[in-house]
Amino acid sequence: MKFARVRTVHGTRPVVVSGDEAYDLSELLGDLTPTTLPLLAEAATAAAGGRLDRFDLTDAVFEAPVATPGAVIAIGMNYAAHAAESGAAPPAVPVMFLKTPNTIAAPGDDFRIPARAAKIDWEVELAMIIGKRAYELTDDEDPLDYVAGFTVVNDLSERTFQIEESGGQWSKGKCVPGSTPIGPWLVSTDDVDHAALRLRSWVNDEPRQDSTTADLIFDCPTIIRHLSQYLALEVGDVVLTGTPEGVALSGRFPYLRPGDVVRIEIDGLGAQRQLMTGVGPDAAGQGGAGPA
Amino acid sequence: MKFARVRTVHGTRPVVVSGDEAYDLSELLGDLTPTTLPLLAEAATAAAGGRLDRFDLTDAVFEAPVATPGAVIAIGMNYAAHAAESGAAPPAVPVMFLKTPNTIAAPGDDFRIPARAAKIDWEVELAMIIGKRAYELTDDEDPLDYVAGFTVVNDLSERTFQIEESGGQWSKGKCVPGSTPIGPWLVSTDDVDHAALRLRSWVNDEPRQDSTTADLIFDCPTIIRHLSQYLALEVGDVVLTGTPEGVALSGRFPYLRPGDVVRIEIDGLGAQRQLMTGVGPDAAGQGGAGPA
Repeated sequence: MKFARVRTVHGTRPVVVSGDEAYDLSELLGDLTPTTLPLLAEAATAAAGGRLDRFDLTDAVFEAPVATPGAVIAIGMNYAAHAAESGAAPPAVPVMFLKTPNTIAAPGDDFRIPARAAKIDWEVELAMIIGKRAYELTDDEDPLDYVAGFTVVNDLSERTFQIEESGGQWSKGKCVPGSTPIGPWLVSTDDVDHAALRLRSWVNDEPRQDSTTADLIFDCPTIIRHLSQYLALEVGDVVLTGTPEGVALSGRFPYLRPGDVVRIEIDGLGAQRQLMTGVGPDAAGQGGAGPA
Repeated sequence: MKFARVRTVHGTRPVVVSGDEAYDLSELLGDLTPTTLPLLAEAATAAAGGRLDRFDLTDAVFEAPVATPGAVIAIGMNYAAHAAESGAAPPAVPVMFLKTPNTIAAPGDDFRIPARAAKIDWEVELAMIIGKRAYELTDDEDPLDYVAGFTVVNDLSERTFQIEESGGQWSKGKCVPGSTPIGPWLVSTDDVDHAALRLRSWVNDEPRQDSTTADLIFDCPTIIRHLSQYLALEVGDVVLTGTPEGVALSGRFPYLRPGDVVRIEIDGLGAQRQLMTGVGPDAAGQGGAGPA
């Protein structure tokens, strides 16, 4: 079952796709939020039972599939080839960092490159949205029971902020407003083989990343169980699983500039497209002066 | 002017202290949230004008002074002596890391030490609560215009999680549920000399930290202006400014165990007290087995 939030002249509407039809979840759920995510199974039943109004997705503009997540949690260096292109060894344990929730954006939103930013990079990632609070999961629990579904995220990153101006803590380069486009779909766990998803990215239609989640060092269940030993994953939290090789940080491709178009796609989960806007770095390509 | 949220049999009540009296802000604001924080000046005027009901703070139990912050943003290694005791050089720029918002706790809440945690540490910190959205502040803007007020935070940390099991990204040791006790008071900026506040901590009434914010490497305005170059600070966000020397990580004191009582205090801002609970690490003091 696939869920989404769609922009309409009447405001944002939650929808579910069942078979070949989309149905309006507004009356049943109001919106897809941390409060209503536990009701997705009920929504799916209502859709299958013909109890909901049909919704026309022609020309639909998608919002982030969950409104107001409480936390955006990311795993770094989770593909060996990406760790290598970043100049790092594959990690022995999942490496966790956080993005602020106000980085969440719709999958088609333009992204404004900050004036000081000279190294904006793309990162296609499989992401999980938490459906049930998870803390200190034991080995006999299935971590995917705590996941509402899967979605696509572009973990847009500024490498100067992340690496050179950070003192080593990556979050400073991971929190530019709009730097977490998410969606279009939230696809329930039973409809996804999370360990065999092809994920790709393009810049101005030239291929960049092309890998599979089979190459994840730490797979989805491992990530959820591991993180739950350290923090409580709340309903609606978004968990990014890491990006494969083929980003600009590798030195093989230029960083993003205003006017560039980034596309990312994960088979079965959908595609995103972002136009880069903003004045971009200065003419010398060095970015502006450092902050105070 | 001082604001707080107080636990009552009728639910949480926001209050303001004006002169020697406390007043109930429930009717005016409902609660202190990211939505109502911009109205604090109006609340203060109402209190001074005698338009509010008095509130008896005798035996009051304080909640966190702001409900549901969107982000908890922290600065690390911001006192030279603490950087030294942690084995690090003083940073050249503010080092930012994030805590999940679900770590927020009331200033007097018990703290449950996870079974696997062998190195729970205290960190008294001056914190700011954002009152107006701040992004890319220019040099001619006063960063404190974007701050609603100051408060006290204990940035409870698990050093094994933060350092040995993290791959270098500190957040993994900063997100134990309840690890950000905050309050009791939100004190407006005009009532605080943020650059000259004595901050102290004790464990079982033995002194641990005793420093002053005059020793901050990056002071409060510098932190806000700097962070705003990288992310948008939203109303209600909590910004921790760093902890001074005197924590267990130094090797001079034992880590916290169930039954220990931590107290922290910042002059003019109030005091906190946490009882450590939980089964604690195993008898050998080594913690449990590692996570999956």
